[in-house]
Amino acid sequence: MAEVGWGILGCAGIAAKVCAALAEAGNARVVAVASRSQEKAEAFAAANAPGARAYGSYEELLDDPDVQVVYIPLPTGLRADWVVKVAEKKKHVLSEKPLAGGWPDTCRMVEACRKEGVQLMDDTMFMHHKRLEEMRHILNDQETFGKVTFVNSTFTISFGNEEDWAKGNIRMKRETEPLGCIGDLGWYCVRFALWAFDYDTPELVRCDYLDATEEGVPLHAVAMMRFSGGRTASFDCSFRHCLRQWAEVVGEKATLSLDDFVVPKTRSTSSYSVMTGAIGEKALTFPQEKTTKIVESPEQHTNLVECLSKLVAEGKRDDFWPKVALQTNQLMVALDTSAQKKGEWVSPASFAP
Amino acid sequence: MAEVGWGILGCAGIAAKVCAALAEAGNARVVAVASRSQEKAEAFAAANAPGARAYGSYEELLDDPDVQVVYIPLPTGLRADWVVKVAEKKKHVLSEKPLAGGWPDTCRMVEACRKEGVQLMDDTMFMHHKRLEEMRHILNDQETFGKVTFVNSTFTISFGNEEDWAKGNIRMKRETEPLGCIGDLGWYCVRFALWAFDYDTPELVRCDYLDATEEGVPLHAVAMMRFSGGRTASFDCSFRHCLRQWAEVVGEKATLSLDDFVVPKTRSTSSYSVMTGAIGEKALTFPQEKTTKIVESPEQHTNLVECLSKLVAEGKRDDFWPKVALQTNQLMVALDTSAQKKGEWVSPASFAP
Repeated sequence: MAEVGWGILGCAGIAAKVCAALAEAGNARVVAVASRSQEKAEAFAAANAPGARAYGSYEELLDDPDVQVVYIPLPTGLRADWVVKVAEKKKHVLSEKPLAGGWPDTCRMVEACRKEGVQLMDDTMFMHHKRLEEMRHILNDQETFGKVTFVNSTFTISFGNEEDWAKGNIRMKRETEPLGCIGDLGWYCVRFALWAFDYDTPELVRCDYLDATEEGVPLHAVAMMRFSGGRTASFDCSFRHCLRQWAEVVGEKATLSLDDFVVPKTRSTSSYSVMTGAIGEKALTFPQEKTTKIVESPEQHTNLVECLSKLVAEGKRDDFWPKVALQTNQLMVALDTSAQKKGEWVSPASFAP
Repeated sequence: MAEVGWGILGCAGIAAKVCAALAEAGNARVVAVASRSQEKAEAFAAANAPGARAYGSYEELLDDPDVQVVYIPLPTGLRADWVVKVAEKKKHVLSEKPLAGGWPDTCRMVEACRKEGVQLMDDTMFMHHKRLEEMRHILNDQETFGKVTFVNSTFTISFGNEEDWAKGNIRMKRETEPLGCIGDLGWYCVRFALWAFDYDTPELVRCDYLDATEEGVPLHAVAMMRFSGGRTASFDCSFRHCLRQWAEVVGEKATLSLDDFVVPKTRSTSSYSVMTGAIGEKALTFPQEKTTKIVESPEQHTNLVECLSKLVAEGKRDDFWPKVALQTNQLMVALDTSAQKKGEWVSPASFAP
């Protein structure tokens, strides 16, 4: 397979995981990394992408003709400008999520990639896990699963409870990460609900920030989304609670669940479960049948970089990825708007593309 | 052990399970059942409490001197009046939940039992399951579990999705069951959160009825509760979704979960799990450790009737039970008030006893 050349724009810790995935991918290679400091770029390259060129400015990386795809892990507040610059250089984009904190920036990024004819993809790893295909078959089985009526998920990670942490961390600054935990964690929950409802857009959403910094950046949030026909989705996300990352899809006849929907517990295997239940005799028991399926699968993040590299190598574009990234960010903006209005129901249609 | 005499006031299907528990209890016996129809009472006694006297009116049962405890599964709209009548006859009360749809009725019932010196207990079976003691030890272990910060649960049962069902069922009439699914199912979720937070009362609650009858009786609801110090609880409950009854208690360092918190899957054993997790190297995996503990236990509903019968046999009163029933109903009323106000945050203190 031809190896597609990747560049890494910024040496945040988060970039190390993409380098790890790129190292495993069969059709991609990191050719350059850039930081605002030459030293940092060199250290990052030595540790995460041996042999890659190290640039002391982002602009130099953009001018490197061997770089075909640029991964952009820069803070959300800076991302839109750089995505547009990368697109204008006719390079493809893997963007960290959320795309942007506001709606105009989101549209500007997606439009620039469309106009320049480059592929845009967001770094939502679970979308590339093999188990999703099997799970889709289960949801589509009207006989055994029935209509999907409710999707519920959580993603919480404890980065510590000290106030110092919230004050010092880049995730907690309004300027750099205006959407806080909903952008960093809730993004996956929203995407999972969209996946389960086959990319329908909810009619109304609401969100409460139950904990936030003084600047209003959410640290703990709960959200509801109402879809047509009485279908609903909810999630909670937080930087304040210990690691939880479960999701459930509730059908009329059964529930499908995962306890590691964002990042699997182990590299090569993962699982999902299907549960059915009934009220036992005289209601003294509620017998429940839970079947867990183990799925052997290549690492999902490696799948993601291979998927994007393959599109680039073959000169193809897949509109699904910018479309679903835009849709997810649309809901992010609607949820944030609701939270700013103390939990009012907000129509995402007010941010229609 | 001395056998305490029980009477069953009303022959609803729900009463059969209490009869089953009473049949297993070592210190209790059904001595009488009553219906508004003599025939129904006789048929119910023959099927569920052989040898019990059958009365064609509730008043006759209240005058039976062998009846020491009365179980009241009457519709919520009728319950307050009958609890007061039972208390005035100096008989003890096992009340179905919720106690009442409104706050004045709730207070009236609890006050009548206090004044007459009879024991009041609500029929919340899981409170009497042996595993709760073990779970409490886990939550109290600051070293391994940390502070409890979030409690999340669900209780959904599908009674069918046809409109006819919602129109015909007694659970769906405002007059008989004004609190619909929050009274019938959410009651357990609220109680579980109270248990996990050691019976603190939340400062604010909110609730959305996502589906309701034309009369406004909730069929699907989601709720949030805010406790002091940033602690929160949430739940969903519904008559429209397939059987789900999980609960999780999230601590700073671990999560405790049950997938059958209301009614165990099997009669003699049940389980709970403790999960910890961390971000693996370069975030390509999130290793999670889940330990599941199997608990051998007598059937919880039998435990409940034995607990109440023992108090009666020994002439003791336990104020914990009316207190927690009152507190749970206080939150029910606050949640319903919030839902009537389209999800506004409501202070339960406005319904303080």
